Amino acid sequence: MANGGIKLSEQVSVVMGSISDWETMKPASEILADFGIDFEKKVISAHRMPAEMFSFAQDAASRGIKVIIAGAGGAAHLPGMLAANTTLPVIGVPVQSHALNGMDSLLSIVQMPAGVPVATTAIGVAGAKNAALLATEILAVADQQLTTKLIDFRQRQHDTALKSGEQLD
Amino acid sequence: MANGGIKLSEQVSVVMGSISDWETMKPASEILADFGIDFEKKVISAHRMPAEMFSFAQDAASRGIKVIIAGAGGAAHLPGMLAANTTLPVIGVPVQSHALNGMDSLLSIVQMPAGVPVATTAIGVAGAKNAALLATEILAVADQQLTTKLIDFRQRQHDTALKSGEQLD
Amino acid sequence: MANGGIKLSEQVSVVMGSISDWETMKPASEILADFGIDFEKKVISAHRMPAEMFSFAQDAASRGIKVIIAGAGGAAHLPGMLAANTTLPVIGVPVQSHALNGMDSLLSIVQMPAGVPVATTAIGVAGAKNAALLATEILAVADQQLTTKLIDFRQRQHDTALKSGEQLD
Amino acid sequence: MANGGIKLSEQVSVVMGSISDWETMKPASEILADFGIDFEKKVISAHRMPAEMFSFAQDAASRGIKVIIAGAGGAAHLPGMLAANTTLPVIGVPVQSHALNGMDSLLSIVQMPAGVPVATTAIGVAGAKNAALLATEILAVADQQLTTKLIDFRQRQHDTALKSGEQLD
Amino acid sequence: MANGGIKLSEQVSVVMGSISDWETMKPASEILADFGIDFEKKVISAHRMPAEMFSFAQDAASRGIKVIIAGAGGAAHLPGMLAANTTLPVIGVPVQSHALNGMDSLLSIVQMPAGVPVATTAIGVAGAKNAALLATEILAVADQQLTTKLIDFRQRQHDTALKSGEQLD
Amino acid sequence: MANGGIKLSEQVSVVMGSISDWETMKPASEILADFGIDFEKKVISAHRMPAEMFSFAQDAASRGIKVIIAGAGGAAHLPGMLAANTTLPVIGVPVQSHALNGMDSLLSIVQMPAGVPVATTAIGVAGAKNAALLATEILAVADQQLTTKLIDFRQRQHDTALKSGEQLD
Amino acid sequence: MANGGIKLSEQVSVVMGSISDWETMKPASEILADFGIDFEKKVISAHRMPAEMFSFAQDAASRGIKVIIAGAGGAAHLPGMLAANTTLPVIGVPVQSHALNGMDSLLSIVQMPAGVPVATTAIGVAGAKNAALLATEILAVADQQLTTKLIDFRQRQHDTALKSGEQLD
Amino acid sequence: MANGGIKLSEQVSVVMGSISDWETMKPASEILADFGIDFEKKVISAHRMPAEMFSFAQDAASRGIKVIIAGAGGAAHLPGMLAANTTLPVIGVPVQSHALNGMDSLLSIVQMPAGVPVATTAIGVAGAKNAALLATEILAVADQQLTTKLIDFRQRQHDTALKSGEQLD
Repeated sequence: MANGGIKLSEQVSVVMGSISDWETMKPASEILADFGIDFEKKVISAHRMPAEMFSFAQDAASRGIKVIIAGAGGAAHLPGMLAANTTLPVIGVPVQSHALNGMDSLLSIVQMPAGVPVATTAIGVAGAKNAALLATEILAVADQQLTTKLIDFRQRQHDTALKSGEQLD
Repeated sequence: MANGGIKLSEQVSVVMGSISDWETMKPASEILADFGIDFEKKVISAHRMPAEMFSFAQDAASRGIKVIIAGAGGAAHLPGMLAANTTLPVIGVPVQSHALNGMDSLLSIVQMPAGVPVATTAIGVAGAKNAALLATEILAVADQQLTTKLIDFRQRQHDTALKSGEQLD
Repeated sequence: MANGGIKLSEQVSVVMGSISDWETMKPASEILADFGIDFEKKVISAHRMPAEMFSFAQDAASRGIKVIIAGAGGAAHLPGMLAANTTLPVIGVPVQSHALNGMDSLLSIVQMPAGVPVATTAIGVAGAKNAALLATEILAVADQQLTTKLIDFRQRQHDTALKSGEQLD
Repeated sequence: MANGGIKLSEQVSVVMGSISDWETMKPASEILADFGIDFEKKVISAHRMPAEMFSFAQDAASRGIKVIIAGAGGAAHLPGMLAANTTLPVIGVPVQSHALNGMDSLLSIVQMPAGVPVATTAIGVAGAKNAALLATEILAVADQQLTTKLIDFRQRQHDTALKSGEQLD
Repeated sequence: MANGGIKLSEQVSVVMGSISDWETMKPASEILADFGIDFEKKVISAHRMPAEMFSFAQDAASRGIKVIIAGAGGAAHLPGMLAANTTLPVIGVPVQSHALNGMDSLLSIVQMPAGVPVATTAIGVAGAKNAALLATEILAVADQQLTTKLIDFRQRQHDTALKSGEQLD
Repeated sequence: MANGGIKLSEQVSVVMGSISDWETMKPASEILADFGIDFEKKVISAHRMPAEMFSFAQDAASRGIKVIIAGAGGAAHLPGMLAANTTLPVIGVPVQSHALNGMDSLLSIVQMPAGVPVATTAIGVAGAKNAALLATEILAVADQQLTTKLIDFRQRQHDTALKSGEQLD
Repeated sequence: MANGGIKLSEQVSVVMGSISDWETMKPASEILADFGIDFEKKVISAHRMPAEMFSFAQDAASRGIKVIIAGAGGAAHLPGMLAANTTLPVIGVPVQSHALNGMDSLLSIVQMPAGVPVATTAIGVAGAKNAALLATEILAVADQQLTTKLIDFRQRQHDTALKSGEQLD
Repeated sequence: MANGGIKLSEQVSVVMGSISDWETMKPASEILADFGIDFEKKVISAHRMPAEMFSFAQDAASRGIKVIIAGAGGAAHLPGMLAANTTLPVIGVPVQSHALNGMDSLLSIVQMPAGVPVATTAIGVAGAKNAALLATEILAVADQQLTTKLIDFRQRQHDTALKSGEQLD
């Protein structure tokens, strides 16, 4: 199983098309760290580093990666091209773009043709955070400890939301 | 584990907000069947059957469900509300709506707030098919046999696409 | 009748999906106060507090609430899910979201399926103010005093608009 | 009160900007009839019959009308202009337009400025049906019999949705 | 004729739905002044001053007004409702709205039904300026002096654009 | 003046970018004919006949044309380029395009920069009809007979709308 | 040079993401044939044939290809990924998609990040035809014969448009 | 040929509709300079300088220009009108507009009718840079030195992207 005796590798890979996407994607890595999930983070540009992008996607499973999180903006091809080169679950995060506020990123990521899925989350930081949570949920399918942590996370989140109402008074 | 000796339950639940969504979601169930994944299918309306929707989401994990696929159109609240009541991965399929062609369905499903993820796929049948493939990829994280089947599926898909070019001549 | 001898409860409940929506919803509560309508205000997150959300909606009528105003942004499920659990009139206010300026909020709230209505107002503060006025109009259907107050409000609003033209000179 | 001994007038007025909107609005009148609510139906064009539109809005309350439902498409000014001339609750139904599928109708109706609310429902027939249900909910605020009927309606709707799932087998 | 011996009235009326639209509409009045066209300017809210709006539109022609310029934002009903009450040419200027950047204003103004035209210009200040120029062009149909002024204006505009290229060096 | 003793030329020119736009623009010519306005109709493609387009625009005024109506779809440059070459009022009709339903046509026509106005009407046939009515209104500024005809037209339109309501019974 | 004595290879490659795009792309190949340009046509799916896609792009220049035309729909990654792997000019044609009418295809193709250009044309058949003409214009930069053919093509196109106006009579 | 012994003229012309577009277009000229390509830069307004625009387009080829880059915003007619008057490749850059963020510019440029192509790039600065790179690619079709430079450019771009990942640590 994934969390066996000897850790051989990270389980999640957080990649992004440009270093400028890090501001959006950093909260994803923080959530993964909070859950105690080993992860790597990389800049992999589908358009400027296509060979590395291919190698990365094709080698990810054999390196022990279980889930890929990919953030990209504009004609955001990275998540879909990674998905085209691996059967690992790929989660796509539409980064908010300058002119079109991420609507281009969203459509480029979510409108994949039948046969090559990308699990798309919301535009921007909310989507990045949810990508990390979704990766955790995916790993938790075969890891009861993570499920317990997720239930705890939801409980704390619930309590914070509930308590926030006091600020209305 | 998922492929244990005695099958206790279905692993994937395919739900939809209305019986009229079945035309979109049927291809998802066909793909799951092709992969030999046990699944159930249900109409669960977030708006017309809220109590059943809650119970379904809260009980799904204890019934042995590993992944939920939820299709809905318009103000498509079903995937997000299921996700609010379970830590299982929830995949949302935006059904193409009448007036706005599924843009409303897409935004209602994908723009979830931080804390409760929904893995969103494309609008319509392509999205339903990819939801089934994504569910398969998620189960395959802990099931090498499914990974092998996915690689075979991709190979056949590749061969079909390659061969389709002959029709150009 | 609503304004009977002993006030048993608030008549309007102003709820919002997140404490960050308060900036948008506060003007709604101010208008209700100006009309002398008793109201309560709460943070109820459909996604982070689903059980409380259900209880709230199901109990609202028995607590004497006559109209619910619900503000939410993004995949704004709160108004629709409240409406799914009560037959009280539910007014939905699309809060202006970060990336898509509230277009996602608007479509998620207004595009409800047949059977479960949400009375939707404009995106942002204008919509919140109008939600309060709409709630007042609804209560005024059986409360002549409120009708008189609404007519006075419109008259003052008219006079202010008329007088504002002097600033052009 | 509304259901007093002698019926003096209809309680709901269903109006539309053009006879071509009747196809969309007819289901609204059918729902009102099912609930036993007396209603009138009229073609009132804001642009081609502005004087009648003004008179209608200004006289509606004194004629005993409690709620106005107004359907319109394109630059759909009817609901907003009625609301400008009455303090009765006005429900606006965006009729699906030819070129822009009702997005123009929706924005023209829902984006009202602060001070003059219109309760907007979904584009097209679903919105028309929900307008009738919303009008019923508004009347039910002071009419326990209607509340009972609404609860029954929801129960039947629930049962139909639940039962529809059998068609999946 | 318009430029007869005794000036009886203004020829153009510049109206706006709210005093907050003045920032957008002021450049229109400046252009009219530059062309020596007599104009009046008014705040007339379709929603908050409907009676004045009707009177204004119905009396405009008899007061000698030849062209109406109307700026409005959001559910911008003012231009269309003026047009419904006069056969004078009405020019609509979509004011840039807060949430939707004037797309709502544009569609509410331009998508008029057959029978009641509104001459729509661009969103914001460019549209306001062009509304003034369009009013001038309309008056110039029967006023050769204005035509000459327009040709001069275009020439100066041409020269400025041509000369601006020098800043590239 | 326009309605002088000897007719020297047509007063309105109805042009379109492609013969395929005639289906949309024909109702405009029919309305002009109904009003007894002399008009010409031409196919003038901004992109395929740029020289003729320039000549047409530059000569129109000297030929006695008073108003130009131009219909175009997609990257609809015709109305704006005509306006760039004449100071006559140019009315632009966005023809409904195949993929984007005329939203491209509308934005290409209406979003003119300050300095060169185009009076834009609604997408499609409604816009074409209103272009003819707007041209009539413009000519009526200096032609009392046309004003009378417009008032009659509005009256008949009013009566038809009023009478159409009988079909509801 | 391109039109040297011995033809070594095709000059243009027309590729598409799916055989279903052929209906859109066929007119492109017909125009190339009309201009006497040697071309090849292929189905190359970025998502289902990523390895072939890479090889194709990387080898195209050495095979003598001068310009690539790539049509794709939805999350249309093909043109951008080809451009990432070659310095040949890549022309992208947004194929009209089912749900979103090609708006997704357009944004996915045109919104490329700085550094890797794709020359984008209109959605659908018009864009496919223009892609062929653009390829011809590019080849004509170093081929006077093609320039002459293009000028002839424009002339014939002009004459056809001019003559089409006779159908108005 | 382009790199012949005596330089007769610039090879690329960078034009823009307004001096205010220079901020967007300047990076295009910098890239051309980096590649050692001779270019000119001009303000040519389709709407305010139509005669110069026509002359420019018609004379460009005979002056030795090989490729035209044209930036424009709003109803961005410049690229399409240049393309209508030359058979040189025209690259259109949609400048980000004030109200609609360049969506109007994009659609006005890219949605050209069949017969007159414009090679469209992304909205804003990224599009301007890519226009320069696309022009370089077009010139490189017949200039091996430029191809070599482009390959070098891509390599450096690749190295920079690769190296940027170090900032994540």
